[in-house]
Amino acid sequence: MREADFPVVIVLSGDDREAVSELLNLLHDWMDARYLDAHFFGRRREEEHRYPRFWRYWQVLPGRGQIGVFAGGYALGLLADQMTGQSDLAEAAARLEHARRLEQTLADDGVLFLKFWLHLPPDRRRKRLEKARKNSKGVRLDEIDLELYERHDEARPLIEALLRRTNTAAAPWHLVESTDTRHRNLSVAREIRDSLVQRLAAPPSPAPVQAPAAPIASPANGGILASVDLGAELPRESYRERLPVLQDRLWDLSTRCAEQGVASALVFEGWDASGKGGVIRRMTRAMDVQHYRVMPVAAPSSEELGHHYLWRFWRRLPPAGRMWICDRSWYGRVLVERVEGFASEQAWSRAYDEINDFEEQLVEHGMPVLKFWMHIDPDTQLERFAERQKTSFKKYKLTEEDHRNRERRPDYEKAAEEMVARTSTDLAPWHLIPANDKRFARIRVLETVCDALEKAVD
Amino acid sequence: MREADFPVVIVLSGDDREAVSELLNLLHDWMDARYLDAHFFGRRREEEHRYPRFWRYWQVLPGRGQIGVFAGGYALGLLADQMTGQSDLAEAAARLEHARRLEQTLADDGVLFLKFWLHLPPDRRRKRLEKARKNSKGVRLDEIDLELYERHDEARPLIEALLRRTNTAAAPWHLVESTDTRHRNLSVAREIRDSLVQRLAAPPSPAPVQAPAAPIASPANGGILASVDLGAELPRESYRERLPVLQDRLWDLSTRCAEQGVASALVFEGWDASGKGGVIRRMTRAMDVQHYRVMPVAAPSSEELGHHYLWRFWRRLPPAGRMWICDRSWYGRVLVERVEGFASEQAWSRAYDEINDFEEQLVEHGMPVLKFWMHIDPDTQLERFAERQKTSFKKYKLTEEDHRNRERRPDYEKAAEEMVARTSTDLAPWHLIPANDKRFARIRVLETVCDALEKAVD
Repeated sequence: MREADFPVVIVLSGDDREAVSELLNLLHDWMDARYLDAHFFGRRREEEHRYPRFWRYWQVLPGRGQIGVFAGGYALGLLADQMTGQSDLAEAAARLEHARRLEQTLADDGVLFLKFWLHLPPDRRRKRLEKARKNSKGVRLDEIDLELYERHDEARPLIEALLRRTNTAAAPWHLVESTDTRHRNLSVAREIRDSLVQRLAAPPSPAPVQAPAAPIASPANGGILASVDLGAELPRESYRERLPVLQDRLWDLSTRCAEQGVASALVFEGWDASGKGGVIRRMTRAMDVQHYRVMPVAAPSSEELGHHYLWRFWRRLPPAGRMWICDRSWYGRVLVERVEGFASEQAWSRAYDEINDFEEQLVEHGMPVLKFWMHIDPDTQLERFAERQKTSFKKYKLTEEDHRNRERRPDYEKAAEEMVARTSTDLAPWHLIPANDKRFARIRVLETVCDALEKAVD
Repeated sequence: MREADFPVVIVLSGDDREAVSELLNLLHDWMDARYLDAHFFGRRREEEHRYPRFWRYWQVLPGRGQIGVFAGGYALGLLADQMTGQSDLAEAAARLEHARRLEQTLADDGVLFLKFWLHLPPDRRRKRLEKARKNSKGVRLDEIDLELYERHDEARPLIEALLRRTNTAAAPWHLVESTDTRHRNLSVAREIRDSLVQRLAAPPSPAPVQAPAAPIASPANGGILASVDLGAELPRESYRERLPVLQDRLWDLSTRCAEQGVASALVFEGWDASGKGGVIRRMTRAMDVQHYRVMPVAAPSSEELGHHYLWRFWRRLPPAGRMWICDRSWYGRVLVERVEGFASEQAWSRAYDEINDFEEQLVEHGMPVLKFWMHIDPDTQLERFAERQKTSFKKYKLTEEDHRNRERRPDYEKAAEEMVARTSTDLAPWHLIPANDKRFARIRVLETVCDALEKAVD
């Protein structure tokens, strides 16, 4: 496995919590404990509540060639929440749908899932309960586990829904009964061995290219980007008047967001020299350093390349109260990576849905997602390139690559067009900013940000 | 800076906490906020108490080409602790000594320190206090800050000690007074600019090779390793009797460690095929997966190479209650990296002290450090290599490199000899394990571990 180009996630879960614990230890004995990375997921801890629900799984996902063992997993969290009345079947369904999509997303990226549901037959439950109460060696059960043994019948509808909804081709459940312990252990071990052997021998056939769910803007109207009014301008005087007012407003709003624990995500995409850096600077200047974090997105590191492309963004998600400003973003997948061929068509074509999912989770967590496409025409871009050459302290920004990208504008235009069409959702719409006039663009962005934050804070 | 081969740490601290805040924001405006990584260190947070004191700084150290801005820093934590009576001058002196050595260690590795101590003259303090109480815009002061303004005279001896003890050639303090705000801001900015320009133009001359503090074992007794009794043996019967007893004891002790939050660090070094993996397996088999974590140490990743060599170990430090088992370790610096020339003589010669410092911090935090050198003679090694070739499922362990390493045994012996001599401290002595007989070695290690844990738990 250590030289394999895919990660393995072994999930040990079920209503037989003692079996989970036993198998976890057994696997560490039967395989090489040095190369297993085990994690325990029960109810979310204090710190984990500050992030979207699936954040904690993303933090510890194994990279290619690594094996992660997840004990408990979302199943246990869900069961625990139901036991304590903090979740009902409807809410559970929504959470399971997220889990299913997460597994699909990762499996599409190559993750091999080995999920075991360890089931304790009813007649054994009573005996186990008595034994567990004695707290004998090897048994580590907490209140939730005992509840699960005692009130198993109540949990059954949820367990059924769970197994049904998350039993997919991408990540099937293996049901294992604890009637005979040795048989149970061998079944799990055999399944793991066989799956690894099979997968190492033959990679799965790539997922098909994903067709768009909705028709893309028809060519009749000339495309979405063409509809941006690049003639929009703002006189210098008006700019000088409005900028400080908006910056004051941003200071107040970002302070209130920090106090109330409201995080937000701002995404800046657009043409080179479209003024992303300038507008970000106008915002950071108007906020306390403790209230924001800027993430400049460049080519991924080797470690990042060993994971799903969303991994590095999940890892840097801001804690409660912080504004996360992304100078370029996860949209690189469907822009530069698509155009330059760094991602296969299979990969970038499914990225639209994955990104919509990702942003939905942020918004559901109470984190507004604001996406800006900074739009300029080719002539303006050329002018700005020429200008930069003259300004010595800006010169470093300009590379051969910038000019080459310019030549590929039609390809990038097509990609941007499709991106806006397929990821402009109700929850996280794209804001197309006419940026031929820098002043107009800055004021428009600042206004949009302020209006959105206003809605997010009390 | 972004292409530089060194990191920059800007420290903003002092008794003028408003200035710290202002300068932090100003720097983010005057420099490119996207490429500054700001961190705030006040008193340690709950989670941070679970690790040694300097853990939190190591977590966020910039890599080469990056700039970290540390606001507050150890100075603020120290002042705050004194204000609340949780630290006295003697304790402070010990902490400052650690801080000084940390800075020296990092500076030796190339980190450029720019430390600013922002001082508020007494006559301004009263005014500031009144203003701060109004909580006007731009001022973010908490209780500790107000205390510091009010009871500044009490803090003075500590501040003087702090500046004196941590004002070194490697990381000097720049004292900046807040008499004129504009002048203050420009002084800091100028100092940063000039230092960067200077350092980018000319790298510092390398630190000299560090002579050993203590004489190394004299050749009269033939060296330390030669004193290991490789004839030590344990009959199979005795082994079969004692192993399960020790494993039971280890289960109980590791459970008690987990309950009492006692972490520990076990280091395994030694010749190839000396049985490190085997002894680790005998231990993990006897513990719950939740009570230990194994770290196999291979060549560092590109990100790790961008930091001090101890960084990757600080990052993986176990939380309270966990046993951290390192299969090879930070000693790679003075073994393989020394012998193979991956580290310069300057670098590995100062590593002994750095490692002793590191381990001292772990032990002071209440974390026993147990170091095992698994010793075998060349003939036994050759036999085991031959045996491995025969056992198909062990074969993967053997590479060309293993044979090459064998030929360099004299070099490795010299390095191991010096390592044991210079890093066998009272707090963390080396245990030299005769490992020609695997049974003897396993029992000896298990006994040593159990005895040490016994002392560490109640």
